[in-house]
Amino acid sequence: MVGTLGAGAAIAGISGMPSEAEAKGGPTEKWPWPYVKLDPGKTAEIAYAEWYRVFCGAAVISSVFGQLREKVGEPYRSFPIDGYVFLEGGVAGWGTVCGSNAGANIVSNMIIGPRIAGPDCEHGAIIGSEMLEWYSETPLPVFMPGQPRQATAIIQTISRSPLCHVSVGKWMKASGYALASPERRDRCARVAASVAFKLVQDLNSWKDGTYVRKANWIPGKDVGITAQQNCTECHETKIPTPPMVKK
Amino acid sequence: MVGTLGAGAAIAGISGMPSEAEAKGGPTEKWPWPYVKLDPGKTAEIAYAEWYRVFCGAAVISSVFGQLREKVGEPYRSFPIDGYVFLEGGVAGWGTVCGSNAGANIVSNMIIGPRIAGPDCEHGAIIGSEMLEWYSETPLPVFMPGQPRQATAIIQTISRSPLCHVSVGKWMKASGYALASPERRDRCARVAASVAFKLVQDLNSWKDGTYVRKANWIPGKDVGITAQQNCTECHETKIPTPPMVKK
Repeated sequence: MVGTLGAGAAIAGISGMPSEAEAKGGPTEKWPWPYVKLDPGKTAEIAYAEWYRVFCGAAVISSVFGQLREKVGEPYRSFPIDGYVFLEGGVAGWGTVCGSNAGANIVSNMIIGPRIAGPDCEHGAIIGSEMLEWYSETPLPVFMPGQPRQATAIIQTISRSPLCHVSVGKWMKASGYALASPERRDRCARVAASVAFKLVQDLNSWKDGTYVRKANWIPGKDVGITAQQNCTECHETKIPTPPMVKK
Repeated sequence: MVGTLGAGAAIAGISGMPSEAEAKGGPTEKWPWPYVKLDPGKTAEIAYAEWYRVFCGAAVISSVFGQLREKVGEPYRSFPIDGYVFLEGGVAGWGTVCGSNAGANIVSNMIIGPRIAGPDCEHGAIIGSEMLEWYSETPLPVFMPGQPRQATAIIQTISRSPLCHVSVGKWMKASGYALASPERRDRCARVAASVAFKLVQDLNSWKDGTYVRKANWIPGKDVGITAQQNCTECHETKIPTPPMVKK
């Protein structure tokens, strides 16, 4: 199937067709999962509140799957939402991918499916990848909760990166607040809410059949290595040229 | 419960107690999940083969959960393993956390549970965090499959980072092989297998009650920000001092 090699494969840019594309088949490995449209604002409020219970990654997952447990039932009831607390701080505090981004990718890929399940499932990875790009380019947080836990103004910063360390670090530098401060915690709760808001907007468009891909970062193809878009931030002027396949 | 604030909270180093620690309670949110000890070598061989079907993150998950589907049944049968293909290339090709590391963290945290579920569950995040440290410090890949798909020697490199971009980039630089080359693909399949091998060793020790934590990186406490350990690699000599909480 040519379609299977389409946008999903292109977005990863690193892998050809799987050699054995047959699903091994647990009961939840049939895609797409049933989805009913959700309210982005309500979802964001849930993510904000859930951040204070399960932190960024699990809060984004809970904000969507929690509602779908009520409205749909399975397979959302059997998804172990709270197990994803470890996404906090960019995976157990290591500052890698922001947990909100990881949570959003889990949601979009679980609902729509992985690219190996066929061309109908490619939007799962695409919506996830687009989230990383939007997160990197947007002054965050954009969502203001109805009843914020911190009255202090929370300034917005642009991370230019999907990584927790870079995103939180730039915000801490601009705001002067420490990692352990209530203001930093509330900033991250609002970032999770902002991500949940956009995620549901995109899922609703996908459900309506009107989803249009806005982001276009295909690193394997574009730069010959899995990568973010902010090369000079670490490499400065000395960006290495990756080895390329011999023609 | 003081225990809930122990090692798990410390490892994240960024968050206090959740405000509502009560589980909301899907059927799979009871921890630990039933675990029977697995053979590390056999698990690594499965991960190596599965890489060519579902790529790094899902391969690590499949290597463990696939066996537990057979030996235990639920909740492993209902876990959507193939949905995690998107972890490839460090989340949809963006080069963030290596999918093998993400997959290992999902496995250890789903089996043992999240720290908010109580002190008995803290080893989930600790085994996951230790994987990031081991991965960063070990010349990889260490696992040699019985029937390698590439006869070429696969050199080992030390990433000093849990990120896909850094790990793959250093290997590509040292080996001269491109991202799209069969050699690079086989290297990553062997890395996934290496991670699966160590993961099962640690899970078996945990099951036996003999697991001893070997890694000790608590970035929020150690450096005041979520972070890896290779500060100078991006910051060179200009490592910023994060704002600290006022006493």
